Amino acid sequence: MTFEQQKRRLSGVVAIPVTPFDAEGAVDSQTYAKLVDRLVTSGIEVVTPNGNTGEFYALDAREARQCLKVTVEAVDGRASVLAGIGHDVASATRAAAHARDAGADMIMIHQPVHPYISGDGWVDYHAAIAAEVPELGVVLYVRNPAIAGEQLRALGEAAPNVIGVKYAVPDPVRFGSVARDAGFGRFVWIAGLAELSAPGYFAVGATGFTSGLVNVEPAISLEMFHALSTGDYPAAMTVWERIRPFEELRAANGNANNVSVVKDALGQLGLCRPDVRPPSRVLTTGEREQLFGLLSSWGLS
Amino acid sequence: MTFEQQKRRLSGVVAIPVTPFDAEGAVDSQTYAKLVDRLVTSGIEVVTPNGNTGEFYALDAREARQCLKVTVEAVDGRASVLAGIGHDVASATRAAAHARDAGADMIMIHQPVHPYISGDGWVDYHAAIAAEVPELGVVLYVRNPAIAGEQLRALGEAAPNVIGVKYAVPDPVRFGSVARDAGFGRFVWIAGLAELSAPGYFAVGATGFTSGLVNVEPAISLEMFHALSTGDYPAAMTVWERIRPFEELRAANGNANNVSVVKDALGQLGLCRPDVRPPSRVLTTGEREQLFGLLSSWGLS
Repeated sequence: MTFEQQKRRLSGVVAIPVTPFDAEGAVDSQTYAKLVDRLVTSGIEVVTPNGNTGEFYALDAREARQCLKVTVEAVDGRASVLAGIGHDVASATRAAAHARDAGADMIMIHQPVHPYISGDGWVDYHAAIAAEVPELGVVLYVRNPAIAGEQLRALGEAAPNVIGVKYAVPDPVRFGSVARDAGFGRFVWIAGLAELSAPGYFAVGATGFTSGLVNVEPAISLEMFHALSTGDYPAAMTVWERIRPFEELRAANGNANNVSVVKDALGQLGLCRPDVRPPSRVLTTGEREQLFGLLSSWGLS
Repeated sequence: MTFEQQKRRLSGVVAIPVTPFDAEGAVDSQTYAKLVDRLVTSGIEVVTPNGNTGEFYALDAREARQCLKVTVEAVDGRASVLAGIGHDVASATRAAAHARDAGADMIMIHQPVHPYISGDGWVDYHAAIAAEVPELGVVLYVRNPAIAGEQLRALGEAAPNVIGVKYAVPDPVRFGSVARDAGFGRFVWIAGLAELSAPGYFAVGATGFTSGLVNVEPAISLEMFHALSTGDYPAAMTVWERIRPFEELRAANGNANNVSVVKDALGQLGLCRPDVRPPSRVLTTGEREQLFGLLSSWGLS
């Protein structure tokens, strides 16, 4: 698949699957595969194992490789696999090479967690990882408002395989400016803060969005994408209003329950256990009841 | 060494050594050992390999173990080794067990990098790691203003070996409040934002501070500690004024050069190479010249 074809796929709903755990707390490969299959049969064209909704930072390196492998097998060529990788350059390049060898199409580089980031060093960090897998498309995950178009432009020149930017700073003005300063056509621009942010980001140039909600009901995310991709903002906002309480439950208390809400919803639908790993926690009974009401109002549960 | 003795040592200058790299970019154990020896012979009683000044997030697991091992050997029983550990619970518990087996006295748990942190999950995360090494003192590295005294108190009850808190939210009012709500006497309180923050934090209850500057000139950090520990704030502020431009150079541009400035200073003193790993970068010629002027004004270089 060419980079241009990958960019077209990234102009869509980029699904971030959850990582289900079994009763002993280990990654549950069988359930993982079923959830991925459900996404792909629903029409999702990009699946991102080891994203934040997949609790990437609560997995060790071996588990992350297991999740990637299970995803590739479950997708079975029907969609693109965008492998989340991160940490120090050595660990990240090893994970990138593993993703390539295991059959991923693309990698998504998590924002560096290093506390001391310079603009030039940010470029070097990503360029070093991208150079390890020149045949894979690379998507950047930008959560840092200090990263400017200048750095993205430099990285785009240094690394031809960097094809996309998942932008997750909650400011569409900054996003629109950074995208143009970087060279708008050089990258595909993905709204990185999911459905509620998508309309504001599409308005200034995004052509895809990432989603955790898609795990629960792919049709909702796809309906919003269809509306946005045809410029039908009022239709998108109808979806927006429907899902707002669900996304607000995830965002409450500094995103404490971001993944817990998704997994609990999947639990209520009988699709996986609700367990999350610390520093997240499972929902309280009250939160669970509130979620039950939301799912019922969507005709689920 | 008892936990009470460890707490007394943490009431001091807690040094965070840099991780020197060789010409090939690998960890330079020999130089690392010399730098640690220099700290200890200068009177430093706690050395923290794999802290942020040691570029923890740019090291892989094998390198972090190497740094810990070199530190224990170089310290040779003359000071306490506080081993920085982090990442997912499984990786962190493995690193904690390794630190114990290698001879560290204490571990410092880095703030979880996971983006979705609940209060209860934060407690569970740290309790799980602390339980792995009940014989080691545990220091928490708190950079998240959402963590309250309530969580620290719960963790203190769940994990008897959690003895210290390195507090690094830039707000002494929050620090003083959290410390009291947590149970002031339960923990030793360490100002986690180094020398410039130390007077404001000692004023509300800190009894130690962490330092990166100590790598360059231990006598300066010890002079400030001596002043603060005897309640001589004017003397502390004399040191503060002397080091302010150095610390400001480190803090500029969102801390981009936090470690680069320290390593470049060590380079100018002939003690190690100035190289840092991405996403940090080495200083520009202009920054280097500015630093040379500062070191000269201290009678160094």
